[in-house]
Amino acid sequence: MARLATRLTRQLGIEHPILSAPMALAAGGALAAAVTRAGGLGLIGGGYGDGAWLEHEFAQAGNTRIGCGFITWSLAKQPHLLAAALAHRPAAMMLSFGDPRPFAADIAAAEVPLICQCQSLDHVRQALDAGAAIVVAQGSEAGGHGHRRATLPFVPEVADLLARESPDTLLLAAGGIADGRGLAASLMLGADGVLVGTRFWASREALVHGGHHAAALAATGDGTVRSSLPDIARRLDWPKPFDIRVADNGFIRRWAGRDDALEASIEQEAPAFRSAFAAGDAENAAVVFGEAAGLIANVSPAGEIVTRMVDEAATLLGEKARGFLA
Amino acid sequence: MARLATRLTRQLGIEHPILSAPMALAAGGALAAAVTRAGGLGLIGGGYGDGAWLEHEFAQAGNTRIGCGFITWSLAKQPHLLAAALAHRPAAMMLSFGDPRPFAADIAAAEVPLICQCQSLDHVRQALDAGAAIVVAQGSEAGGHGHRRATLPFVPEVADLLARESPDTLLLAAGGIADGRGLAASLMLGADGVLVGTRFWASREALVHGGHHAAALAATGDGTVRSSLPDIARRLDWPKPFDIRVADNGFIRRWAGRDDALEASIEQEAPAFRSAFAAGDAENAAVVFGEAAGLIANVSPAGEIVTRMVDEAATLLGEKARGFLA
Repeated sequence: MARLATRLTRQLGIEHPILSAPMALAAGGALAAAVTRAGGLGLIGGGYGDGAWLEHEFAQAGNTRIGCGFITWSLAKQPHLLAAALAHRPAAMMLSFGDPRPFAADIAAAEVPLICQCQSLDHVRQALDAGAAIVVAQGSEAGGHGHRRATLPFVPEVADLLARESPDTLLLAAGGIADGRGLAASLMLGADGVLVGTRFWASREALVHGGHHAAALAATGDGTVRSSLPDIARRLDWPKPFDIRVADNGFIRRWAGRDDALEASIEQEAPAFRSAFAAGDAENAAVVFGEAAGLIANVSPAGEIVTRMVDEAATLLGEKARGFLA
Repeated sequence: MARLATRLTRQLGIEHPILSAPMALAAGGALAAAVTRAGGLGLIGGGYGDGAWLEHEFAQAGNTRIGCGFITWSLAKQPHLLAAALAHRPAAMMLSFGDPRPFAADIAAAEVPLICQCQSLDHVRQALDAGAAIVVAQGSEAGGHGHRRATLPFVPEVADLLARESPDTLLLAAGGIADGRGLAASLMLGADGVLVGTRFWASREALVHGGHHAAALAATGDGTVRSSLPDIARRLDWPKPFDIRVADNGFIRRWAGRDDALEASIEQEAPAFRSAFAAGDAENAAVVFGEAAGLIANVSPAGEIVTRMVDEAATLLGEKARGFLA
């Protein structure tokens, strides 16, 4: 198969410039290990911080080299989880959605590369203050939590900022990338690699209910929205400015524009949402995928996803690119 | 200088796969002609339909081969303007924001290629029904009117739809593209070329007040928002689901979340907005640019913009792409 070499592959010692996103609840040890075995780097999703879950998923990955990621504002409430994760000597530690600086010293002391996911230029400056080895420029088209910048113009703007202020910091593109086209485009935009969520969420190894997978396969990229409703229903106190991209389904339509009404009936609605989610009911709870769902036609083994992305990107950057210059 | 050949350059008989967007008010004959002379294709912005303005701007372009674009729902109120524009034998006729089908027969009879700008997959299907030669997949990061899809995942999804249903229809990417990185990325995503707005809005030939240019140069890509407030202030009856991306300035902050209050005081506010806009006051009226403003450091001649984009994209698709495969 093809190979794509960038500063990222050299720095992390991996074959392909592809990381799987540490998606809360969905990205466990089996997914992370499968991505790593295929030549990328897989990340476990530490999410809202469940210590027992985290230990179990690190164990699932066995001896395969993987990374880990946390939701920063949530980690701040249970900071001991960082030490627990670092004890596994992860290949990288990713922090998203909150100020990474309070955790930077411990991560540096463990000699683990820090990855900071950013949704604005201010976040990038915080990441540089924290000594991030890698910055992720995440576009709003991504599934799950995020903010409003779009991947295509955000990545080169962050690349320019890094070139001026911190040229050794690497850059990953995230949001909307599901195949070799997105990977090749990201490299042209100035990224050193990609962080891929939705495409790996739709893999065999992801901890995702079949009912949710079926909804994503049936959806086009037009069928998602950014909303705060899923966080209200889950009683998660997400800080501004973040909201979450989910399927535009029955749950969203029922409560659209009525955040206060959902809050008011939360005693009934929270358990209903929770059981619908657990049952894989794709209409009465949130289904978390991004615009890239419109590019996904099957639930594949994660290793095949890596291989297909790289082969397609290599063809585009080789033969196809040469064709434009002819 | 470099050249980039695609299906678009062959079909339109141009040197480079770059079209300037027919931006209402800002894209006159001088800008369109400069883009064409540099090897792209420039489009006059027919906008809300001012027949005298249109004649004047066609005259400004002289004998240079240019195209024209209209806001479809507005053209429907003054359909005679289509014949007036077609009488100039434009190189292409672009329709955006509304159903293009009522105008398709007249455009076909004039043997002018129809370009339809699309913000959803439904719009693409309407465009195919209308017999569009070229479809534009416009992302939400674009300045001016649009909707919610993001360019990076939207373009390949439209490419897949066209490959299945209408493989001879060409595809342009729009939204967030301001330099060779965006052009090269768009070609990797499956586009045959790009439609560029904000970068040409920030050109010497654009009909834009210096105060507005200064605001864009000072802005980062984080400094824009999508809003309906500018259309309320201008008493423009834009149909759903469109809104407009503008600078996140004093006008926007003053009325944010208070559409009804702006409506209620429109008798005072509409003239105030209009005079602030005409005076180039960048805080008290809308300034229309997209996220790509964060990639723009100067107001350049449009021809230089074309040349720089092509040279940069050619380097990326050549030398840089080969480096990843080494």
